[in-house]
Amino acid sequence: MALTAIDTKLTSTESLCTRYLEIRAHSLAICEPLELEDYVVQPMAEVSPPKWHLAHSAWFFEEMVLAKYSADYSRFDAQFNRLFNSYYKGAGEHWIQAKRGQLSRPTVAEVFAYREHVDREMQKLFSQTSLDQSCLDTVTIGLHHEQQHQELLLMDIKCILALNPSQPVYKVSGLKPLAKSAMDWHLIEEGVYEIGHEGESFSYDNEQPRHKVYLQEAAISNTLVTNGEYLKFIEAGGYENPLYWLSQGWDWVGENAIDSPLYWQKSESWQVFTLNGLQSMDLDSPVEHISYFEADAYANWAGFRLPTEQESEVFLRASELSDNPVWWWTQSHYSPYPGFKKFDGALGEYNGKFMCNQFVLRGGCAATPKEHLRTSYRNFYQPHQRWMFSGIRLAKESLR
Amino acid sequence: MALTAIDTKLTSTESLCTRYLEIRAHSLAICEPLELEDYVVQPMAEVSPPKWHLAHSAWFFEEMVLAKYSADYSRFDAQFNRLFNSYYKGAGEHWIQAKRGQLSRPTVAEVFAYREHVDREMQKLFSQTSLDQSCLDTVTIGLHHEQQHQELLLMDIKCILALNPSQPVYKVSGLKPLAKSAMDWHLIEEGVYEIGHEGESFSYDNEQPRHKVYLQEAAISNTLVTNGEYLKFIEAGGYENPLYWLSQGWDWVGENAIDSPLYWQKSESWQVFTLNGLQSMDLDSPVEHISYFEADAYANWAGFRLPTEQESEVFLRASELSDNPVWWWTQSHYSPYPGFKKFDGALGEYNGKFMCNQFVLRGGCAATPKEHLRTSYRNFYQPHQRWMFSGIRLAKESLR
Amino acid sequence: MALTAIDTKLTSTESLCTRYLEIRAHSLAICEPLELEDYVVQPMAEVSPPKWHLAHSAWFFEEMVLAKYSADYSRFDAQFNRLFNSYYKGAGEHWIQAKRGQLSRPTVAEVFAYREHVDREMQKLFSQTSLDQSCLDTVTIGLHHEQQHQELLLMDIKCILALNPSQPVYKVSGLKPLAKSAMDWHLIEEGVYEIGHEGESFSYDNEQPRHKVYLQEAAISNTLVTNGEYLKFIEAGGYENPLYWLSQGWDWVGENAIDSPLYWQKSESWQVFTLNGLQSMDLDSPVEHISYFEADAYANWAGFRLPTEQESEVFLRASELSDNPVWWWTQSHYSPYPGFKKFDGALGEYNGKFMCNQFVLRGGCAATPKEHLRTSYRNFYQPHQRWMFSGIRLAKESLR
Amino acid sequence: MALTAIDTKLTSTESLCTRYLEIRAHSLAICEPLELEDYVVQPMAEVSPPKWHLAHSAWFFEEMVLAKYSADYSRFDAQFNRLFNSYYKGAGEHWIQAKRGQLSRPTVAEVFAYREHVDREMQKLFSQTSLDQSCLDTVTIGLHHEQQHQELLLMDIKCILALNPSQPVYKVSGLKPLAKSAMDWHLIEEGVYEIGHEGESFSYDNEQPRHKVYLQEAAISNTLVTNGEYLKFIEAGGYENPLYWLSQGWDWVGENAIDSPLYWQKSESWQVFTLNGLQSMDLDSPVEHISYFEADAYANWAGFRLPTEQESEVFLRASELSDNPVWWWTQSHYSPYPGFKKFDGALGEYNGKFMCNQFVLRGGCAATPKEHLRTSYRNFYQPHQRWMFSGIRLAKESLR
Repeated sequence: MALTAIDTKLTSTESLCTRYLEIRAHSLAICEPLELEDYVVQPMAEVSPPKWHLAHSAWFFEEMVLAKYSADYSRFDAQFNRLFNSYYKGAGEHWIQAKRGQLSRPTVAEVFAYREHVDREMQKLFSQTSLDQSCLDTVTIGLHHEQQHQELLLMDIKCILALNPSQPVYKVSGLKPLAKSAMDWHLIEEGVYEIGHEGESFSYDNEQPRHKVYLQEAAISNTLVTNGEYLKFIEAGGYENPLYWLSQGWDWVGENAIDSPLYWQKSESWQVFTLNGLQSMDLDSPVEHISYFEADAYANWAGFRLPTEQESEVFLRASELSDNPVWWWTQSHYSPYPGFKKFDGALGEYNGKFMCNQFVLRGGCAATPKEHLRTSYRNFYQPHQRWMFSGIRLAKESLR
Repeated sequence: MALTAIDTKLTSTESLCTRYLEIRAHSLAICEPLELEDYVVQPMAEVSPPKWHLAHSAWFFEEMVLAKYSADYSRFDAQFNRLFNSYYKGAGEHWIQAKRGQLSRPTVAEVFAYREHVDREMQKLFSQTSLDQSCLDTVTIGLHHEQQHQELLLMDIKCILALNPSQPVYKVSGLKPLAKSAMDWHLIEEGVYEIGHEGESFSYDNEQPRHKVYLQEAAISNTLVTNGEYLKFIEAGGYENPLYWLSQGWDWVGENAIDSPLYWQKSESWQVFTLNGLQSMDLDSPVEHISYFEADAYANWAGFRLPTEQESEVFLRASELSDNPVWWWTQSHYSPYPGFKKFDGALGEYNGKFMCNQFVLRGGCAATPKEHLRTSYRNFYQPHQRWMFSGIRLAKESLR
Repeated sequence: MALTAIDTKLTSTESLCTRYLEIRAHSLAICEPLELEDYVVQPMAEVSPPKWHLAHSAWFFEEMVLAKYSADYSRFDAQFNRLFNSYYKGAGEHWIQAKRGQLSRPTVAEVFAYREHVDREMQKLFSQTSLDQSCLDTVTIGLHHEQQHQELLLMDIKCILALNPSQPVYKVSGLKPLAKSAMDWHLIEEGVYEIGHEGESFSYDNEQPRHKVYLQEAAISNTLVTNGEYLKFIEAGGYENPLYWLSQGWDWVGENAIDSPLYWQKSESWQVFTLNGLQSMDLDSPVEHISYFEADAYANWAGFRLPTEQESEVFLRASELSDNPVWWWTQSHYSPYPGFKKFDGALGEYNGKFMCNQFVLRGGCAATPKEHLRTSYRNFYQPHQRWMFSGIRLAKESLR
Repeated sequence: MALTAIDTKLTSTESLCTRYLEIRAHSLAICEPLELEDYVVQPMAEVSPPKWHLAHSAWFFEEMVLAKYSADYSRFDAQFNRLFNSYYKGAGEHWIQAKRGQLSRPTVAEVFAYREHVDREMQKLFSQTSLDQSCLDTVTIGLHHEQQHQELLLMDIKCILALNPSQPVYKVSGLKPLAKSAMDWHLIEEGVYEIGHEGESFSYDNEQPRHKVYLQEAAISNTLVTNGEYLKFIEAGGYENPLYWLSQGWDWVGENAIDSPLYWQKSESWQVFTLNGLQSMDLDSPVEHISYFEADAYANWAGFRLPTEQESEVFLRASELSDNPVWWWTQSHYSPYPGFKKFDGALGEYNGKFMCNQFVLRGGCAATPKEHLRTSYRNFYQPHQRWMFSGIRLAKESLR
């Protein structure tokens, strides 16, 4: 997939530079409440140390932009390409993901210096008179990439703090309580719809091309499943009855002794670990940190189903996207759209190679940078994962 | 999903009884060339000992039919429900799949006696004047179930024999060489199509309901990828270049040191283990025993893609189904059709609970009983599995 | 270690041939009560299918005797060296131990034919006028090896039958109930003792050389710990208190949810699976099928300790060896004696390479062929293993 | 084992207090060259983050001394007992060893504050007029315990730094090059020897009681095997020939693709990672960081054997202990001495429960605090471990 003119709003390099600096600064702002030790640890293979996120998002600009488009760029450290490449086989060997937390060096201070080096060099690049369109396009991808990692940073910080017996507070995180709304169903009429990214603004390759699908009549809930509703599933023995569960889900429950969402703690009453520390459970808040297996089992128990990603996209177009507190699982496997073309070059590994055994989540969450939200955005995770801000929206076949 | 009148061709209990006896006899006929020891072993978790298949398919009739519809049925052995239930949690605890090969008892002779007992009792049941429609429907499912296991028996027997250094011959298996046909592309025009089982004849719940989909223009190959074509992929370094592979596929290649399809052996020239024993490779035969990962990598290397299951179903309606030598992988995840309803009761676990991390295969193979083939049939396996008779059919976006 | 004249009782080839045929026949006699399916399965990595034992003990004579000393010997099957070599790296590649149960071929009938072939050829060899002493020595080792496998056969058969829900009876196995004797302590006086095999009769390399050790005063129990005594340990919470256990033992208890000896079953009362099938527990019989971890924890709980192998050997010389129903664990690691020399040639791998993380058991058991018992005999197993006939004999520092 | 008067040199509380402060300060001095991030990570399960060592050795005094003997002691943090108890089941639940590196909190600064708190409280305790002998004894053990962790700190710091691609330098660590001495053999004459700790000075429970053993004539090398000598073993194909190896050792080599000692790196020439950073190999230095498996294989290849721990103790008494650069593996399993009694109370878990599948190392190393060295000292590790400073000393049966 050619990257020509993927984001016309950003064709001015000056405004691109401004935006670059804002977005880059925001990554550091997210880490500001951390202790230095919090930057270093890796509690499970999928969770990266915050300092790795900071270094990797700098590496992206170094490897994909500066090394290609900056004539006499000299790398900050020859070993960083190996350490901070995440998974781009085309960019050479990389450090094993599960071992990121074994690296005490480079230190946090060195990572900060690395970011400053890259930022300085990027500003030099922006000051050049004529930049290639492909260069500008790659910078744009890099900024969206950095914003993805801003959400990942919050997910991973939460996971790192949660396992501490001292249950540390990150900070009041701006996750405001939602106005409670009555449950209602949004009708999707049978017929042909267009799905996928439209227009000239930025999107990832996996949101394209826009294409027609035929949807059956369906209804999708205008509210997310709440903690209180999910609690009823637990109290009804939902985690003990295999008939609600996918076969792999039931194995997962048994092998991991799962009996409630991640971060729920039962003492005298239910409490939830949050970025504000341990809180008593708000029954009206959307349930979060649940796996696809749990979302599917809940829907079965409740007599409904999960929506598809196409239904979700149609629903999102008709709703206010920016207020969505958690991503919801769809029953759709993360597959290529008809006519899918990968990004050109090294970025071809960005999305397409993960189209296997992952399910799509839609909608965005409170941790998602607002400019990063799109109705066509396809988030994806493996069905057992739940450290991201994931929840449940229900669907059914018709309004009746 | 109610099972009313799912197979009108079989409403006569007399003809149902005849068919029952034929199909049951065929399972034994498949095992006839085996040594008694071959009935017992389990070379990997997914492969079952042939005696287990024989017992399990009898158990299906005992548990799902006789125990429910035969007034004074007495079970052959009280422990067999636990031993030969495959995965129906609703039918009680069951023996772990991976440990089926640890059971020396019941002996093969006892399993044969079990089948005879069930057959006798089924004949008694058939001789009753008025059988419930739901009983007849369940018998029909049981026969299709037995036919599924006939194909599984051949897959598993091949796997059991293949690992023996003596490379035993099963028998000339009726796998006739195909007439070689020139590669050509079948056009699928853009538009709305109906997908899923139609009419009153039998189908599984997962093939229903019939529903509309919108397909983009596409072209699907009228030939399957051959051994010779696949060999070129190997010789071009296909197994050594991560850029052709899904991320999980590349991990699978590395962890299992995969460098060719299952049952291929390289000595001076390439040979293939078959049910006829070790044979020199026929370059014009369809490649078989490959994983989804390999199929997808091959398609990427060749500059094409795998078809979807919808494209495959449209293609199948226009082609001669019964001659298909191998199943082909589709790029479609095994998901519920819109409006999917599970079979009622215990059989609700037959299909729906596996709709996770499996990909659909279409078309049937030489080991599939001919009456078991349908254009709407959805076979499904995990992307790394390849001991079934699985191959590759290519697709592309348009005829050009 | 040279094998010269290791068993003077057997220097006559005629009597050696007679003994060969007797011992070989006894292996078959042990298997006689089995169903053919019982010969094939492998319930855990350390347990071998009975047909493997029969083939391996024939392979020993083929590889170590016939291939070396029979001028024009032709092997029964070229692949059997790979399939039935247990662990002799010097004899070439061998089939992985944990996968012995995956082999349906050669069939049991073929294994019997293999044994007959080897026996015929051995008889031909015995009929030659002058056999090399090293040949005679190797035959002698082969006979002791076959007797070791006779005990292993009974252990493995028990394990294979025990996991069957039908709890099959092997046969009345000649394990006669012991005359109950009162517990008493045998005094070992402080001083220098000689340990190890003495004289010209056969022993393994690991029992040599005879050497002096200095023992402190100690007392060793003249009775084995009984089921009834062990039950008190269970009832006192022995499996729940980490302070009785070795650190690795406590991990083993937790990871495997161990709460009683292997083959004990609690229903209304305690029952024990035996070669005679499921039996109600005899409280006066020696406890058997326990791990080193359990033996050590029991001794700690009871306020005693396990004896060393040197104490055990001194004790054995003073007692009636042939009546010992179970082996007892010693606290001695399986290490080389001072001046240890391995057998010459391929048989150098027989014993020495296992001198790591194994503990010595002494005394013999009811399944040990009587001629195979020696006071200097060193049996050895890993501390978690317990499918052999293993029990507990206690010791303490002095008679007081 | 009662702790009465175990170290008469320290009966004065004043001098004990002085020594306490010196030893405690030395632990911090060891960590002084570290970056803060180095305190946090855990590269493998057996290696602990330096901040954990600092906290654990404080916990030892808090839990074993202050909580028992200081009337109104209040703990620094209620959660630290769980976090910094290593393995004392009698002291309550403890955090899993392999997950120590997942804890970002408490921070390093908090751990330092914890140590200061404990030190203040210990000084208060020392200022009391009459301290119980058992209290003084426990303090003495605590100081020896802290010194053990000083060596562990150096081992673990080396491991943490070594895996960094930047190969950081810790500091010039005082590991002075040894005067090269000619290889010679020290004779041990046959006869009865006394083994174990003697006198009133401190020793661990596992060094007692002193007891008689009978040793055969043997000779033990007065030099350690050097890098240069070990290199010859590698060049002779030592890692490729199973006949030199213990059975478990050969599996370990294969599964972990071992082909040289830990920290050796082959580029154009051999280099070794040290606490001084990457250095070219000194062929005359003792080989270090090798496993028991490698030590045993080397000895087999060289035609010798490893010494027993008794031979080593006899040898140590006749040699200059304090100059020993690396521990040497003995062929002796870590077992209780005859009449062994554990420390009383909670400290009973210090040593005895590890007497399983560990081999004894003798002699001490350059990282061992000098006051911590004793001829009777028994160090022990599992046979595959090699991140400690471990080497090889050879033995043979006689001077000839």
